[in-house]
Amino acid sequence: MNIKIQSTKDKNFFSDLKNNLEFDSSGNNEVQKITKSIVSDIKRQGDKALIKLTGQLDHLEVNSVSQLEVSKARLQKAFESIPEKTKKDLKLAAERIYNYHLKQKGESWSYEDDDGSSYGQKITPIDSVGLYVPGGKAAYPSSVLMNAIPAKIAGCKEIILCSPPNKEGEIANEILYAASLCGVTKIYKVGGIQAISGLTFGTETIPKVYKIFGPGNQFVTVAKQLATKFGVAIDMPAGPSELLVMADESANASFIASDLLSQAEHGADSQVLLVSTSNTIIENVFTELKKQLEELPRKEIATRAIQNSKSILVKDFKESLALINEYAPEHFIVCTKNNDFFIEGISNAGSVFIGNYTPESAGDYASGTNHTLPTNGYSKTYSGVNLDSFTKSITFQEITKTGIQNIGSSIELMAEAEGLQAHKNAVTLRLKDLK
Amino acid sequence: MNIKIQSTKDKNFFSDLKNNLEFDSSGNNEVQKITKSIVSDIKRQGDKALIKLTGQLDHLEVNSVSQLEVSKARLQKAFESIPEKTKKDLKLAAERIYNYHLKQKGESWSYEDDDGSSYGQKITPIDSVGLYVPGGKAAYPSSVLMNAIPAKIAGCKEIILCSPPNKEGEIANEILYAASLCGVTKIYKVGGIQAISGLTFGTETIPKVYKIFGPGNQFVTVAKQLATKFGVAIDMPAGPSELLVMADESANASFIASDLLSQAEHGADSQVLLVSTSNTIIENVFTELKKQLEELPRKEIATRAIQNSKSILVKDFKESLALINEYAPEHFIVCTKNNDFFIEGISNAGSVFIGNYTPESAGDYASGTNHTLPTNGYSKTYSGVNLDSFTKSITFQEITKTGIQNIGSSIELMAEAEGLQAHKNAVTLRLKDLK
Repeated sequence: MNIKIQSTKDKNFFSDLKNNLEFDSSGNNEVQKITKSIVSDIKRQGDKALIKLTGQLDHLEVNSVSQLEVSKARLQKAFESIPEKTKKDLKLAAERIYNYHLKQKGESWSYEDDDGSSYGQKITPIDSVGLYVPGGKAAYPSSVLMNAIPAKIAGCKEIILCSPPNKEGEIANEILYAASLCGVTKIYKVGGIQAISGLTFGTETIPKVYKIFGPGNQFVTVAKQLATKFGVAIDMPAGPSELLVMADESANASFIASDLLSQAEHGADSQVLLVSTSNTIIENVFTELKKQLEELPRKEIATRAIQNSKSILVKDFKESLALINEYAPEHFIVCTKNNDFFIEGISNAGSVFIGNYTPESAGDYASGTNHTLPTNGYSKTYSGVNLDSFTKSITFQEITKTGIQNIGSSIELMAEAEGLQAHKNAVTLRLKDLK
Repeated sequence: MNIKIQSTKDKNFFSDLKNNLEFDSSGNNEVQKITKSIVSDIKRQGDKALIKLTGQLDHLEVNSVSQLEVSKARLQKAFESIPEKTKKDLKLAAERIYNYHLKQKGESWSYEDDDGSSYGQKITPIDSVGLYVPGGKAAYPSSVLMNAIPAKIAGCKEIILCSPPNKEGEIANEILYAASLCGVTKIYKVGGIQAISGLTFGTETIPKVYKIFGPGNQFVTVAKQLATKFGVAIDMPAGPSELLVMADESANASFIASDLLSQAEHGADSQVLLVSTSNTIIENVFTELKKQLEELPRKEIATRAIQNSKSILVKDFKESLALINEYAPEHFIVCTKNNDFFIEGISNAGSVFIGNYTPESAGDYASGTNHTLPTNGYSKTYSGVNLDSFTKSITFQEITKTGIQNIGSSIELMAEAEGLQAHKNAVTLRLKDLK
């Protein structure tokens, strides 16, 4: 980590910061080409292509896609195989995520005008959602909880989970257990581009969904972007993870170092920033960081991420807040003697972690907040995944005879001024009828 | 209009419907090429390109972009020039839109766990938004109201309006009056691609915004799509307008015909559908429609739209509701003897107009609901423009010492299971410290 004493007044300060963030979400040409070819296969051949690709890419040979659906018996086996402690941990996390997301529930509403006309808004769930859970070296049950729980609270009728089979041709017990905890309706052992395209177009076996959630590698990311061209929505564009820590001398340097490293271990392109009013804290964190780094299994990845990252010495909290709002970090940890100043002033961030005992990893698993958050400055315009990601609202109006008599002439005039005679006429005919 | 007695059971029923909707939002190659070239000019040359393009394309010659900003004196003049009746109508519409959107306001919240840890969510406005208002033959003050009012309620600090100068080198009085009614902060006489790019990148004079709203021609649509590649959000992808009317014998055929025509006059690609349990109603609407069509100034456009549209005879309300939810219309008018059945059952639609005295044009101007709505089936996943379009939320957590002791070991286990040792370590260090 570079200890650069940078000034936010520097003309190029923010563009320099962003340089680290440059990220081509479209993938390189080779990734694009492979993805397009597989998407096209699934679109044209459905189940047939799914069977072929699952054999080729995930080494699982089946005769029909229905064999790729996880059975009740398999779910039961997963339930029985998982250690009680793991069950307890996943249940705790699920319960906390449930409680937090339940608070996000909005209510439908309506009101009546003096003339008896009524107006309202109805919140409805997205009927059918897909949830992708990556495979690879580890299982990611947290990803199941973070998406399936709000989907269930929202009332989505179909929650379809796809995850690649592992070497044993199975989905890990933890994922299956997490899925059964939170009401996933169907689970398929299908991975990568095939899974995303299957959910996009539907095949003879896999249902088409309206929105796809979940992380993945660059092939999955490109396949999700292609899905949007066919009218299927996605959670959000995925970018490298970011953490900004604001610390003054009241912060614990060892804790801060561990938080910076927890973000850095995600990938070499992770963006880690330390902002402080105290040079001593920056130096202490740096010392701690070097020490802790040595003991990490993902040391190499974390080191590369840390090399790209910056420490910024600021004059005061005000300068710091302006910087943070301009940078709009995905994760923001604040450990200062006046955290309220930042909590009140923050306008752009994904999720905020306050004080010395709130590590960012709490939000990844069990504090209850969602861990899918806007990166790359997107928190200036987007929220993280939340209950609203699984719903949409419909507006309603029912105008009475008196109501249209009250507002009709204004509508007529505005429609006419905008050159839309038929719009006007729809009111005129009704007003005439009431005379 | 074709009176086709179609069955929704037909395998190709929905794909046939959608065929009418096929719509290449990316524009043709020529549009893409022109747009990209202008976007690139503005990006590289800022004000200089804006001045050049405004002279070339909108025939307004200026020496500096600051001359394109609408002055206080000009606003005052607009205020004085507008007829009192027009002011009254615009004020009525503004007030109703304000009242409706105010009800959409969500509250920030927080709660405390038994261990004193607290969790919450804070709703914050998008700092800076751009609003495009098209020029052309007519002025569209309704577009100003529909975007600037929710932006103001949300608390957006900067609301920048761009609209092309007319032949007199001015923006129409109605637009300026509407803008001053609802707190627009800056107004520029800049149109088309130049306006969208100016707001995307910012120039020496025009501020960069975080999200761009408003309708426009295909050049504006492509420029907005390009804006998203540079991290600027947009309201929603624009598609041809749609109206689905569900009518039984309790409906007024003449009113229904006027509503279908009000949608049809938007463009030859507008999609207009009549669904009914009664063949008589379909025939009566058809007769009325032919009569009313003759008197429309936009007869030619409306005729072409009507030719592409369909009437569908359904067996009963249940079949009708399934069809409507599958089609997911932008506008949905329901005039039946059991409207509640539809209101309760509707899950996919932009805005719903209930009963014989609620024309769709009321929603375009003055009922209070927003007129920017999801087309092309997008109401399956998206809401129309609403207060949330101008805000985003940040999640918060502040965990106490007892709190991290309560949930720490679960986080450790989950992090370890997912192969993320540094995530685990951030908790371990804190737990050790508390021992």
